[in-house]
Amino acid sequence: MLFRQLFDSESSTYTYLLADLTTREAVLIDPVLEQVERDTRLLEELGLKLVVVMETHVHADHVTGAGQLRERMGARVMASAKGAPCVDRQLKHGDVVRVGQLELRVLETPGHTDDSLSFLCDGRLFTGDALLVRGTGRTDFQNGDPGQLYDSITRELFVLPDATEVFPAHDYAGFTSSSVGEEKRHNPRLAGRTRDDFVHFMKSRQIPPPRKLDVAVPANRACGLTAPADSQSPSA
Amino acid sequence: MLFRQLFDSESSTYTYLLADLTTREAVLIDPVLEQVERDTRLLEELGLKLVVVMETHVHADHVTGAGQLRERMGARVMASAKGAPCVDRQLKHGDVVRVGQLELRVLETPGHTDDSLSFLCDGRLFTGDALLVRGTGRTDFQNGDPGQLYDSITRELFVLPDATEVFPAHDYAGFTSSSVGEEKRHNPRLAGRTRDDFVHFMKSRQIPPPRKLDVAVPANRACGLTAPADSQSPSA
Repeated sequence: MLFRQLFDSESSTYTYLLADLTTREAVLIDPVLEQVERDTRLLEELGLKLVVVMETHVHADHVTGAGQLRERMGARVMASAKGAPCVDRQLKHGDVVRVGQLELRVLETPGHTDDSLSFLCDGRLFTGDALLVRGTGRTDFQNGDPGQLYDSITRELFVLPDATEVFPAHDYAGFTSSSVGEEKRHNPRLAGRTRDDFVHFMKSRQIPPPRKLDVAVPANRACGLTAPADSQSPSA
Repeated sequence: MLFRQLFDSESSTYTYLLADLTTREAVLIDPVLEQVERDTRLLEELGLKLVVVMETHVHADHVTGAGQLRERMGARVMASAKGAPCVDRQLKHGDVVRVGQLELRVLETPGHTDDSLSFLCDGRLFTGDALLVRGTGRTDFQNGDPGQLYDSITRELFVLPDATEVFPAHDYAGFTSSSVGEEKRHNPRLAGRTRDDFVHFMKSRQIPPPRKLDVAVPANRACGLTAPADSQSPSA
């Protein structure tokens, strides 16, 4: 199995490439539009066929590369049934996505957004914006809900083995990964905090909305592709 | 064994943490001064004792955290005999640094600077600024030499097994790692290029010096610590 973590410095987004080195089939999790050239070249150099793109959620801080990767490479785009309508397969809790011999198990982990998913593959947990290294996603837009996020993390993620590696969709402090055990013990929003503590803390935060919110969310509901010309010109 | 890649976004520097989970002894490769708090906290949270700091070379783009980590945690600082005079152990080709059960083998890979080392540990190769993902370090200061860099990469690094993972000291395009086989085949400065091609290319580049060159190099020769007061006041 090949595993590669990629970073978009403009949005501090991590994209993950996983591939079965026998069948050469690959999956990208949370690709970024501005990095499609980089990612396409990397796939070509590695001799991989991109068959699946998986989104942890409809992102508000960057535009996805999913639609372009589908057009260029024929990949099937997958995300939550509660998320973008543009996808080829709607995922729900307990689903397993097979890419060659790889199996990615789908966990519904809403709270950052109502469509947030995490993916578990061979001891690696891709948490999107639900669980970050020493942090969590925010819960103040896109139907976010702090109580729901607390439940998702504690009931779905923190029940996994402590050694499970945690790979988030973002980091802003230079961490690339963590583990379930480490976050249970040291995540300052969760360790030793009750659900009520967490909800109170999240509701008391005053932070500006993501810079790209108004652009990214509608774009990502179309898998990052520009809407067709006729839908841009309602008078036509 | 624990392995963790850390990033300093201001200088695009990767720092590496390796630890023996039995003895809890740890080594940091190329720590950054501004990240000493982050790294110290991480070591504490993980219950690790930092016993060694290793530098791949005297850096020109950031100030090292080595001296502060030595003062705070008692770590021994190690680097090339041709590098900073402040170190506790001077390393040369073929040396092995033991940290618990971990063994880090020292490879002299000069050319980016004359003191550049790479370290090999359990299939992971830490290449400093000698070999980057799809690139190399520059060779136009600190006794850099493009012919020497070509020889270092092709004779010391590219002779390792193709599956050896490559972890550079920097990346500017969002790559976190590569492999020896991948760089042999796809590094645009090296794949299909002769030594003369490489030397010509490196000598023809016109790029400004690192922003921190004049500050970082003298600071790093003192392991990132401010010179003692009396040496700052020669008249005292």
